[in-house]
Amino acid sequence: MKGFNIKFLPEKKSVSVESGTDLLTASIKSGIHIYNSCGGEGVCGRCKVIVKKGKYVTEHSGRISEKERKIGYVLACRTTPESDMEILVPEESRLGDIEVLTQEAKAKRLAGLYTPAEAIEEEHYKTETKVFKHGPLSTKLFLKLSPPSIDDNCGDVERLFREIRKDKNIPVMQMGLANIKRLPRLLRESNWKVTTTLGNRNGTTEVVLIEPGDTSDKNFGIALDIGTTTIVAYLVDLKSQKVLGAKASYNPQVDFGEDVISRIIYAQEGAGLEKLHHAVIDTVNTLIDSLAKEQKLTLDDITAIMCAGNTTMTHLLLKIEPTYIRKDPYIPAVNSMPVIRAAEAGIKVNPRGLLSCLPSIGSYVGGDIVSGVLASGIDNTKDLSLFIDLGTNGEVVLGNKEYFIACSTSAGPCFEGGGLASGIRAMKGAIQSVSVKKDKLAVETIGKAPAKGICGSGAIDGLSVFLQNKIIDRSGRIKDNRISKVKEEDGVKRIVLVEEKNSATGKDIIIDENDIKNIIHSKGAIYTGIEVLLKESGYKKSDLKHVFIAGGLGTALNIRSSINIGLLPDLPEKKFEFLGNTSIAGAKASLLSSEAMDKAYSIANKMTYLDLSTSSSFMNNYSAALFLPHTDIELFPSVKGL
Amino acid sequence: MKGFNIKFLPEKKSVSVESGTDLLTASIKSGIHIYNSCGGEGVCGRCKVIVKKGKYVTEHSGRISEKERKIGYVLACRTTPESDMEILVPEESRLGDIEVLTQEAKAKRLAGLYTPAEAIEEEHYKTETKVFKHGPLSTKLFLKLSPPSIDDNCGDVERLFREIRKDKNIPVMQMGLANIKRLPRLLRESNWKVTTTLGNRNGTTEVVLIEPGDTSDKNFGIALDIGTTTIVAYLVDLKSQKVLGAKASYNPQVDFGEDVISRIIYAQEGAGLEKLHHAVIDTVNTLIDSLAKEQKLTLDDITAIMCAGNTTMTHLLLKIEPTYIRKDPYIPAVNSMPVIRAAEAGIKVNPRGLLSCLPSIGSYVGGDIVSGVLASGIDNTKDLSLFIDLGTNGEVVLGNKEYFIACSTSAGPCFEGGGLASGIRAMKGAIQSVSVKKDKLAVETIGKAPAKGICGSGAIDGLSVFLQNKIIDRSGRIKDNRISKVKEEDGVKRIVLVEEKNSATGKDIIIDENDIKNIIHSKGAIYTGIEVLLKESGYKKSDLKHVFIAGGLGTALNIRSSINIGLLPDLPEKKFEFLGNTSIAGAKASLLSSEAMDKAYSIANKMTYLDLSTSSSFMNNYSAALFLPHTDIELFPSVKGL
Repeated sequence: MKGFNIKFLPEKKSVSVESGTDLLTASIKSGIHIYNSCGGEGVCGRCKVIVKKGKYVTEHSGRISEKERKIGYVLACRTTPESDMEILVPEESRLGDIEVLTQEAKAKRLAGLYTPAEAIEEEHYKTETKVFKHGPLSTKLFLKLSPPSIDDNCGDVERLFREIRKDKNIPVMQMGLANIKRLPRLLRESNWKVTTTLGNRNGTTEVVLIEPGDTSDKNFGIALDIGTTTIVAYLVDLKSQKVLGAKASYNPQVDFGEDVISRIIYAQEGAGLEKLHHAVIDTVNTLIDSLAKEQKLTLDDITAIMCAGNTTMTHLLLKIEPTYIRKDPYIPAVNSMPVIRAAEAGIKVNPRGLLSCLPSIGSYVGGDIVSGVLASGIDNTKDLSLFIDLGTNGEVVLGNKEYFIACSTSAGPCFEGGGLASGIRAMKGAIQSVSVKKDKLAVETIGKAPAKGICGSGAIDGLSVFLQNKIIDRSGRIKDNRISKVKEEDGVKRIVLVEEKNSATGKDIIIDENDIKNIIHSKGAIYTGIEVLLKESGYKKSDLKHVFIAGGLGTALNIRSSINIGLLPDLPEKKFEFLGNTSIAGAKASLLSSEAMDKAYSIANKMTYLDLSTSSSFMNNYSAALFLPHTDIELFPSVKGL
Repeated sequence: MKGFNIKFLPEKKSVSVESGTDLLTASIKSGIHIYNSCGGEGVCGRCKVIVKKGKYVTEHSGRISEKERKIGYVLACRTTPESDMEILVPEESRLGDIEVLTQEAKAKRLAGLYTPAEAIEEEHYKTETKVFKHGPLSTKLFLKLSPPSIDDNCGDVERLFREIRKDKNIPVMQMGLANIKRLPRLLRESNWKVTTTLGNRNGTTEVVLIEPGDTSDKNFGIALDIGTTTIVAYLVDLKSQKVLGAKASYNPQVDFGEDVISRIIYAQEGAGLEKLHHAVIDTVNTLIDSLAKEQKLTLDDITAIMCAGNTTMTHLLLKIEPTYIRKDPYIPAVNSMPVIRAAEAGIKVNPRGLLSCLPSIGSYVGGDIVSGVLASGIDNTKDLSLFIDLGTNGEVVLGNKEYFIACSTSAGPCFEGGGLASGIRAMKGAIQSVSVKKDKLAVETIGKAPAKGICGSGAIDGLSVFLQNKIIDRSGRIKDNRISKVKEEDGVKRIVLVEEKNSATGKDIIIDENDIKNIIHSKGAIYTGIEVLLKESGYKKSDLKHVFIAGGLGTALNIRSSINIGLLPDLPEKKFEFLGNTSIAGAKASLLSSEAMDKAYSIANKMTYLDLSTSSSFMNNYSAALFLPHTDIELFPSVKGL
């Protein structure tokens, strides 16, 4: 078959592809990561590239403006070469490098990470680990066995078990053949002094490892947050309970689709599941390897992994078919995944090390949410509380120590920078807040770098400022005004936040009416989710004592702005708390404490899933929420005043 | 290196061996199994072969008579070729073929086996399986799951577990990743009707297999008795509880040494453990394969194996180092072996099928004895009972439902036909009983075939007849008499049971004074073991209500003769019962019933091991027992009368 050479610029990376291969596939092959939310369906318009040389066939897309088309913009996923080509991948279409993200500052912002020292200082982390009794997923125990004699002649395994059980109540103890085989020689060569690693495995205690001498000081675990967008790993000392290091990386599954639905679809095709699985496992292994190297540990020193992820991410991590998650009636293969060996999933730590995943509630409320609820502590109080995860799914949980009700709102990717003309993730150069200074719009970017785009918290802040300054009306339409520059392209009005001459991309950083519509839909979905949960439980807004917000939408969320646009209910600001990445916090707690793990299961058991797609009250209320802050302004008295 | 060609006759099987290779090793290589009790140390004298052609170097052996030497007899283990050779392997040195042993009649005699029809008829088997509640090691359960809906949207695994738990109390349920991966598609393709195989695994319940549709009628298991000499396998229908087939084979580990000690020593050399392990596993696989073929089953239909073996056999089966079993203070690696996958040990059944081994008490009282005690039922009664296994170790167990005390007497191989000049195992042509007819010795062979040798029950019967007819005195010395022909060779007197002209081997079948000494030592060891156990527990012989005898020493044991020679205590004959192979019977019961398996563990827990090698009372009593029936004839009043 005929093939072409595709050169990607400015890297000048070349790949050979067969005729008929689209440019998105070619870029994945070349190792250049291009944005892509829809899995290559030509829908999201995020994979724009600029043709510099060569002949090609492309499809018309409304996502490409007339002006862009003239410069050579095409959608990579809808374009196939007819000759060798040279393709420029513009900054805004790039995913950015893993290296950048692992820098401490970025990692902290993206995932609520702290340096080891900070982790100890931070009250939140202190509380989280102090609440639960220490009892990690795997514990090391140094044992001095009494050597056998004619009068005490029980077998080696029985002698070991007897010593382990000395001060402990362990009804079911397990040990594999491999360890039994090693035991006789090991016990004698180590003069009956050994260290056993005991794993907490599905209601039983397993002798995971036996080592000669006293190695009880060296026992490490990994807490994992497998997000749809970002993967975060903590290296945790299971004895001292300290976080020794933290790293984050993009989830490279993004190459195959930005949201869980597009990945599930991709998983159904040929080797799709295999590819998605390897994408996440390779990244997890890279993160663990670099964390271990930093601390001069070997992978064998790591004996336990606790993972929090949404239901689809957990399925893909374990290479379990996710097909039925998106098919009516939306059933995952498994919610409560048994503890297995990490090696079974392909994770490279001690070959006998354990992998535990926090339990899911259903197809669209996963272990990340259970982990978040655990970390928020709302299951400890009788106070009615709300937990909101502002991710792509926008999960909302209402309840207290007695029960929980949860829903998933399909908020869309807005709060993670997706679906916006200039949207990017919370990274260096992302606009995170907007204000009016000297009668002009002013922005602040993360890292105070030249603006590259706008992230979730910036978009929320922007809308609030636009509304207060009458740059937009309550339906989101852009008005001519003296504060902002308004342009119109292809019949769509846009507010220019940063002009092309000042931006990092050489293009205007804008919010257009389509973006505003998207944000309104997203905030409307979440707000309506909250309303429906309250209504279903017979509560009023004012009954809420705490509202916890989690997510990676910026360094901090402006609560006032969130209320102003009708994302969050109109309550006193002191009731709100932004927690950052609660998924990793809960995973860490569960890794260090079986009590926390048990609590995660009890949270999962008392949580009911409310399917909004079949809820008539959601559909009724939703359209009323597609207004700023709401059709019924009486619901937002504090905004009405402004 | 120089090599020679060795041709074995009458098969004319040739092998090439390197210079310095002994003839026993050459025969193993050629696939011809030669007797060998001592592991090739030149001690047992069982590996006699006749040189027909070729030059060689050999060592002098007292085991070879002057007459034999002239014909060309040498010990295979002590002879190395100096040229190409032709070697005749005489009948009495052959182990016999596996094919012969699997014949129903032989198998029955060797191992207490019955044809399927007989197994159902036989009261013993009926009782044995009826005592315990049906609950096999693996159970199949056909499930009709309710398909998921929006209102009943739990995950696939949770749905399966819920249905399994419907009428059952299963606190800890486990399922591996492999099954979870298959589940979503399987459930839907089978229209939510599946059969699960539930395994009873170390205090938890494991979902071992999931199959589409109703396959609950097809669930099979294997009961195994791994004896030092013989391996027996039953194919059992786990649903109907019927034995569908039974096969037996020599344990080919005999090639490496006849008793457990010589095998433990062999295991310590180079690849010794590997070779011993493969020898037993290959045989087990051959037996299982042929049982499955006979019933037109696939190996996948077999999901559970229950194994009874002595401690060393269990270690070798699982390739666990047995070294410390024979080193002071005699500690096995494991007594209570956890349930593992049969595939982990190399056994070819369903790859996820389970292997359970009955628990041992210590290095010299193993799972075969626990299994025997279970099968004998003596743990159900308050009556003081004795259980005697007349194998090479000669284990004796005393007790009742409250407690057990056990010892191992190192009886030697006499009762299995070893260590006797004309001794052979209980096989076709073996003399099994001796009597005096018309003032002449008369013998009866197994299968009424021409006499090939004498087996355990024949030797016991012989000694009793000799004693009663004053052919020997009470110390075992042979007297001139009118009833038997007495010869003398190399200064040792011998009683001719069958003259060379009438035997199958062309040689006299004899019992000589050395044989009698060996039998007296063996019976003395067992009798003294019984005495010591009674004394240690504060009981008298007359307190015994039942005496059960197990072993493969013939089709039946003559109780009267056993008392006459002082092997068994002088009690009314009705108190004795010969049970045959109780090891396989207990394994079968444990395979079919978790209640039986639990009972085996409770038997093991209440059994104390008494080490006779450190018992002064054993040594004191032993020498007194080296007389027929005993130095103190008052202990045998019924014999005194005769």
